[in-house]
Amino acid sequence: MPDVRSRRELERLVPVAGNGLLDRRAFFRNGAVLAAAMTGYAVVKPAAAEPLADPPWSRAAGGLVEAYGQPSRFEKRVARTLSNPKGEPRTQHGRTPHHLLNGTFTPNGLHFVISHSGDPDIDPAGHRLAIHGLVKQPLVYTLDALERYPMVSRMSFVECGGNSAPLFSNEPLQATVQALHGLVSCAEYTGVPLSTLLEETGVDPKAKWIVAEGADSLALSRSVPLTKALDDAMIALYQNGERIMPGNGYPMRLLLPGWEGNMNVKWLRRIELTERPAMGYYEARTYAPILPDGKAYQFYFLQEVKSFITHPSFGLKMNRPGYYEISGVAYSGNGRISKVMVTADGGRTWAQAALQEPVLAKAFTRFRVPWRWDGGPAVLQSRAWDEGGHVQPTRAEIVAHRGQTVKPPPVTAFPAQHYNGPTSWAVERGGEVKHVYA
Amino acid sequence: MPDVRSRRELERLVPVAGNGLLDRRAFFRNGAVLAAAMTGYAVVKPAAAEPLADPPWSRAAGGLVEAYGQPSRFEKRVARTLSNPKGEPRTQHGRTPHHLLNGTFTPNGLHFVISHSGDPDIDPAGHRLAIHGLVKQPLVYTLDALERYPMVSRMSFVECGGNSAPLFSNEPLQATVQALHGLVSCAEYTGVPLSTLLEETGVDPKAKWIVAEGADSLALSRSVPLTKALDDAMIALYQNGERIMPGNGYPMRLLLPGWEGNMNVKWLRRIELTERPAMGYYEARTYAPILPDGKAYQFYFLQEVKSFITHPSFGLKMNRPGYYEISGVAYSGNGRISKVMVTADGGRTWAQAALQEPVLAKAFTRFRVPWRWDGGPAVLQSRAWDEGGHVQPTRAEIVAHRGQTVKPPPVTAFPAQHYNGPTSWAVERGGEVKHVYA
Repeated sequence: MPDVRSRRELERLVPVAGNGLLDRRAFFRNGAVLAAAMTGYAVVKPAAAEPLADPPWSRAAGGLVEAYGQPSRFEKRVARTLSNPKGEPRTQHGRTPHHLLNGTFTPNGLHFVISHSGDPDIDPAGHRLAIHGLVKQPLVYTLDALERYPMVSRMSFVECGGNSAPLFSNEPLQATVQALHGLVSCAEYTGVPLSTLLEETGVDPKAKWIVAEGADSLALSRSVPLTKALDDAMIALYQNGERIMPGNGYPMRLLLPGWEGNMNVKWLRRIELTERPAMGYYEARTYAPILPDGKAYQFYFLQEVKSFITHPSFGLKMNRPGYYEISGVAYSGNGRISKVMVTADGGRTWAQAALQEPVLAKAFTRFRVPWRWDGGPAVLQSRAWDEGGHVQPTRAEIVAHRGQTVKPPPVTAFPAQHYNGPTSWAVERGGEVKHVYA
Repeated sequence: MPDVRSRRELERLVPVAGNGLLDRRAFFRNGAVLAAAMTGYAVVKPAAAEPLADPPWSRAAGGLVEAYGQPSRFEKRVARTLSNPKGEPRTQHGRTPHHLLNGTFTPNGLHFVISHSGDPDIDPAGHRLAIHGLVKQPLVYTLDALERYPMVSRMSFVECGGNSAPLFSNEPLQATVQALHGLVSCAEYTGVPLSTLLEETGVDPKAKWIVAEGADSLALSRSVPLTKALDDAMIALYQNGERIMPGNGYPMRLLLPGWEGNMNVKWLRRIELTERPAMGYYEARTYAPILPDGKAYQFYFLQEVKSFITHPSFGLKMNRPGYYEISGVAYSGNGRISKVMVTADGGRTWAQAALQEPVLAKAFTRFRVPWRWDGGPAVLQSRAWDEGGHVQPTRAEIVAHRGQTVKPPPVTAFPAQHYNGPTSWAVERGGEVKHVYA
C-alpha cells in the first residue's frame, strides 16, 4: 500500500468496533488512510495513457435546457411509491425513496405525501386564511397580504405518525427503507410565524387550543395546543425555496416543527381558537390507537428521536467485500441530534458515527461511519440520541408499550403508531441485505 | 392600536434609518410590534362569525399524488428564462427567478444552467472518470465505485463569472433580478472529496494544476490550481438530495465552492494533473476579458462578496404604503457573510439586516429588514461583508477597474466579468420599482 505514509495512519484502519467499523474521524483527518483502504478493488485501472473512449453523448450536441428542470431519464426509479395510483376514494400515500437519496433533506418532487381526499387544485388568488374564535379581532388573510409579513426560514422534518408502522409486525417485513420509513421527509420552509398573526388578532385568555382546518374536500382538522402555536409554529408558504408543492399544502400549510405530520395541516384555511380540542376524526380515531392496556394513545404530538440506515439497506446489493460507507438519517422532534451510534455485529459493539454539519434542531442529520466489510455476515443498526438526552428505545420496549401486529395482514384495525425503535439490516455472505429484528 | 402593549414597544417602530427602515430585531423580539404596524391594511376583516365561503376545490375530491411531484399549475411563471429555447448551435442559458423564490437555496428545477453544447444525455452505467497525468497511478472510476467512497454534504452557491454583467452597462437596464442576477444559484451537494481520490492516485510533486474536462460534445475544460483541488473540491453526485440534474452535470460535476461557475466542470469525465494550466478556450478567451488598461483579466477564480435585494425588486409592484419586508441573498466565495447593511434612501443612512441562521460559508444567506414604506420615493440597496472583512465595492469602483459597456447593444465582444457591486431599486410614488444606479 504505497499511499499509506506511516504506521500511525495504518492503525486508523484498525476497527473501532466489531465486524469492521472504522473510526468516524478517519476520513476527516486523512483521506490517505481510506484511500489506501480502498485501493485496488473499487476502481478500474487504465491500461494506457489515453484511457477513455468517446461515448455517444460526447459525439453530438446535447439536449435542451428546460424552463423547469427534471431529473435524468436514467433516474426514473428514484420516485415515490404510490399506494393508490388511480386515486380511488381512499387515502393516497407517496413514499420517499430514502435508499436512493443522499444528503440532509428531501427534494420537493420526492417529499412524502399523504392525501386523504386528493390534492385540491387551489387557485391562490381565491384562497383565504381565517383566524377566529377566542380572539380579540377575527381576521382573514389573503396570500398577497401574508407575503408582506416578516418571514423566517427553517429546515424541518415532517413525519407521519404511522411512519415505520411495519416495524410493529411480529415478523420483519422484507422491504426497502422507502416502504418502511418513507413517510418522513425534510425540507426548508419559509413563511410567517403564527405567533405574529396571533399577536395581530389578539388572544382571549380563555383560549387554550387552536383548531386548524384544511381546504381539502374533507376539511381535515386537527387541534393543537396554543403553546405550540405561539412557539415555533409557522404559516409555511415556501418549500425548499419555491412555493409549497400541491401535495404538501399549496398555497400554505401549518408547520409544527417536530410534531406529528397529520397536525401540520395542509391547504390551511382556518384557525379557530378554542377552550378545548375539537376531538376531530384524525385525533379521536385515526391517530388514537388502542394500547395493549386498553387506553387510547391520544394527543401525543411529538415525533421522538429516531434514526435509520439508508446505505446499505434492503434492496441495495453489496457486490464484493471491502470498504463501504454506512450512512443514514437521524432526527428528533425535541431538538438537535447529539450522537448516533452504529453497530455491525447486532448490538454487541458500537462505533460513533460522524454527523454532517450543520446539525439543526428538528431536521434531518446525515450520519456516516466508514466500514470495511470482510464479506461475512453482519447485522447493522443505528441508535440516536438528542440534545435533551432522549434515546431511541429498543424494539422490545416500544412493542411492549404499543402492541404488536400480526403478519401477514389483516393487521389490527388501528395499527400502533409512532415507532421510533431501531431498524436492523442483516448483510448476508453473498451481499444480500435482509430486514431482521436484532 | 389596541395590540401595542407599551410605549417602549411602540418606540421600536421608530425607524433606525432613513425612509422607514426598522430595527431588524423587532420581529425576533416581539411579534406584537410588527403586527401592530400592519394592522388595518394587510388583512380583510370578516363581516360575520362564519367568514369563509367554500370554494370549488373544497367541494370535490382533489387530484392524484404523483410519483415525482410538480409545482402547482398556478406557478407556471416561476420558471427559468431561456436564452435559446430551440437549442440553436450556441450557448443556452436558463436563469433562476430569484424574485419569485424565498428561503436560502434554489430548488433543482430552477437552478441556473449554462450549457454550451446542450445537456448530454449520459447513461451513468457507461460514464467514467479518469484521473491521470502527473500521478503515481492513473485510475478510472465508475459511478458505482464512487458510491462506495466516504461522502460529505455541503451547501454551496455556484455563480457564472458573467452573472450580473448587465450592471456594467452605462445605463441601468430595466430588468428583473432574474435577468440581472439569474446566473447564480445555491444547492446542497453530496459527493466524494477530490482530495480522497488524489490521495489514492498519488500526486507527482511536479504537479501544480489539474485540468478538468466534461463529457459534453465540446469537451469543455478548465484548469484549476492543485491547492484548490486538495482543499474543498468535491466530485458531486447529488444535488439537494437527489442525483445531479442533467443541466447541472449529471451524473457528476466538479464542485469548487466559491469559485467561478464555469470551472465547476459538469459531466466531469477527466482530471489530468499538469505542471501548467492548459490555456483552454474558456480560460484563455471567454473568461479572460480585456480590462481598460489593456491587460486580460484572467485566472481570477473567486466569486467575491455580493448581495442583491429580491423583494421588492423590478417587476414586483407595491400596491399601497405600509409595512413590507426587504429581503435578498448575500454570499461570498471567501466564506461566511458577516453583515449586510440596507439603505432605503440611496445610501445616506443604513440599517443592519437580520441574517437567517445558519449562516454557512460559500452559501446563500437570506437577509431581511422590516420596512415601513410611507408611499413616497425610496431607493433601496444592500451591501454585504464577509468574515474575511471584504465588502462589496461601489459600482463606480468596479466599473473603473473592469470597464463599462454601452447600452443598447452592441456591447464589447468580451464584456466585463465578475460584477459584485450593489444593485439599486428605486421605488416610485405609485409603487413601481425601477432599476437605477445610485
